[in-house]
Formats: sequence, C-alpha cells, structure tokens
Amino acid sequence: MPDASGIARRRTAAQLNATRESQYRQRRAEIIQVAAEVFREKGFDGATMNDIAKGVGSDRASVYYYVKNKEECLEEIVRDVLRANLAGAQRVLLQEANGAEKIAALVEDMISSYDRNFPHMYVFLEDFPRLTRQRGRWAQDIMAMTRRFEAIVSEILVSGQADGSLREDLPVRLSALALFGMVNWTYCWYQPGGRYDPALIARAFSAILLDGVAHR
Amino acid sequence: MPDASGIARRRTAAQLNATRESQYRQRRAEIIQVAAEVFREKGFDGATMNDIAKGVGSDRASVYYYVKNKEECLEEIVRDVLRANLAGAQRVLLQEANGAEKIAALVEDMISSYDRNFPHMYVFLEDFPRLTRQRGRWAQDIMAMTRRFEAIVSEILVSGQADGSLREDLPVRLSALALFGMVNWTYCWYQPGGRYDPALIARAFSAILLDGVAHR
Repeated sequence: MPDASGIARRRTAAQLNATRESQYRQRRAEIIQVAAEVFREKGFDGATMNDIAKGVGSDRASVYYYVKNKEECLEEIVRDVLRANLAGAQRVLLQEANGAEKIAALVEDMISSYDRNFPHMYVFLEDFPRLTRQRGRWAQDIMAMTRRFEAIVSEILVSGQADGSLREDLPVRLSALALFGMVNWTYCWYQPGGRYDPALIARAFSAILLDGVAHR
Repeated sequence: MPDASGIARRRTAAQLNATRESQYRQRRAEIIQVAAEVFREKGFDGATMNDIAKGVGSDRASVYYYVKNKEECLEEIVRDVLRANLAGAQRVLLQEANGAEKIAALVEDMISSYDRNFPHMYVFLEDFPRLTRQRGRWAQDIMAMTRRFEAIVSEILVSGQADGSLREDLPVRLSALALFGMVNWTYCWYQPGGRYDPALIARAFSAILLDGVAHR
C-alpha cells in the first residue's frame, strides 16, 4: 500500500511540524513576556537584546532565532495589550449598568491597563500619530483595534444618552475624543509610584469627565 | 582730538553693525513667517527649503544664510506661538471673571491658537515627550514656557476654588492635566476644515470640562 504509507509519512511529518511550530510559538511568547519585564525594569531605550537573552536564560543568538529585535517584542506586547483592552471594553459595553457607569468603568480599565503595562503602552502612545500614517500588517492590526475601541466608546455614549444618564447636547465623537485625550495624555506625565496612584487618577478623571470641575 | 575721533569711528561702526544686525533679524523673521505659510500649505514633511526660498522671492543659498534648515524654522515658529499663548493665558488670568469663566476662555484660546498655527503646533506636540528629554537652548526655552503655562492654569483652578465657581474635591494638578489632555490630544485628530470647527470644539470641551457629560 504505497499510497497509504505515503499518507502516514506525510501525516507524521505534518504532526512533527505542528509540534515544532507550537514549540516555536511558545518559546517566542516566553521571550516576549520576559522582554516586557525587561522594558519595565530598564525602560525601552535602556533595554538590550542581551538583557532579554539573560532574562530567558539563553544567549543572544538563540533569542534572535525567535524575535528580530526589541522593537518587534514591543510590537507584540502592544498588540496583546490592545487585544486585552478591547476585550475589556466589550465586557464593559455588555455590563448591566447605565452609560455613565460604563464610562467610569472604561476610564478605570484604561488607566489601570496603562499602569500595568508601563512603559510599553507609553512607548507606543508616543509613536501613535506616526503609526496612523504607517502601512504594514502590525500598524493595520493596531489601527483596526483602535477604531473598534473608539466604536465601543461611541456605542456606550449613545446608550447613555438613550438611558438618560448622559447629556444629549454634546456630539458623541467629541465626548469620545475628550475621554481619549484625558486618558491617553497620561503618557506625557504618568510615572508608576508617583504622587497619584492609578485608582485615584481614574476616580478623578471619571469625576471630571462625568460631572465636570465646576461647582454645582 | 584723536580719542574723540576714535570714539566717533567706533560709534559709526557700532551703528552700522547694529543696522546690519537689525536688517539680518528682520529678514530672518520674514523667512520664518513665509516658512509657516509653506508648512501650512504643504505640510511640514512635504515642505522644502526651495519652497521657502521661492516664497520669499530668493534662492536657496541666500535663505541658508538666515536659517539652517526647515527644522530651525519650525522651532522659531513654535517658540513664537508658545510665547503668544503664554501672554494670552496671562491675560486670561488677570481678567475680571471667575475661575470657571477663565477656564472656558483658556480652552477657547488654546484650540483657536492650534487651529491658526496648524500644522506647526501639531508637528511640535507630536514630538513633545521627546523634547522633555532633550537639552539645548531651544528645548529649555520651550520647557520653561510650558511649565509657566501649567502654573497659570493651576493658579486659575485654585482661584476658581476660592471664588466658589470650581469644585474643591479634585486635585488641581489632575484637573490641569485633564485640560491639557483633552486640548493637546487634538493633535491626533484635528484637521482644519473638518466636521467640527474650532469654536464648536472649544465650546464642547469647555462644557465637558466644566459640567461633564453626565445628565444632571
């Protein structure tokens, strides 16, 4: 049965390949996880591929087999964080709560994610406007997730106007951009361990966004 | 009277030098003004020193006598805009108005200045976080003006808490950073001639910042 034997051989080869591919992916994911820790500790500019190699208990040459450079590690980290943030926003959208409560939850999620993912998300936000002019698969993925995120925020704002918790006299898009401005601008000033902790910042920003700084 | 004659000669030379220097400065200012117009028309990336030379009715070589490159033009433009914005903020601070009204006036001034000074201020804001890590005279000037601007916003917020127009339960620094975030983040999305004009954006942002997006 030469044909059947050929199939078996090809299946075994395919299974071996699949195993190898899965091992490759797993090792790559480990390296990227370690890269995130190295960036957090040394800053993105201060980190080297050597530091990352040391972190995974390997040498630089082996690490290069899995990732091209630290920029590629950062890209993967940012993609993962945005994916998680998007899933979080989707959960907020589906919560049993009114629009105002969902906005507060979203602000808290974003500030907390930026803190947990310091400095990666800030290195990313620093380059964000340049990104919007880039091509390439990664930039496309990022922009698609960003647009989806914006759409969710708009949906929440519209639902809040419908349930009576949010004002109807403000353009939804400008309210969404005000939210992104306040929260994303933290990349210019936020430092973990600084004067204001993430929970306090989130509470203050929610209060400002929802109720304003004016005395009632 | 050899001494007196020597003084007269030196005075004449000094006056000639002063005239030359004043002419040089004036010509340089004209070129930078034209550079601003060229950037507005072609964008910063699209503009060349040739375009600037054509705009002043001269050739590239003569223009290089006055400015090193287009980056230097941009730096001068941004310094002038920030100086004007700072003077504007100081005028707002001294207005006969309560803190809430001053905050609205400030937001309007900033949005309107960013629109009038498109795209220079946005090219600058895109590089702002990098700037804060730079040395050099220009970066020092810019950071000093930025700090002064922040101090004025804080003064206005504190005065508003004192006159009863602003809430006292929000940290002044976080309110100031929320304002800068909303207004400065426009660099990621604002386009002159877009869906929302600067006056509408300023009104919406003042309303959000002062009264919030929640229904009362």
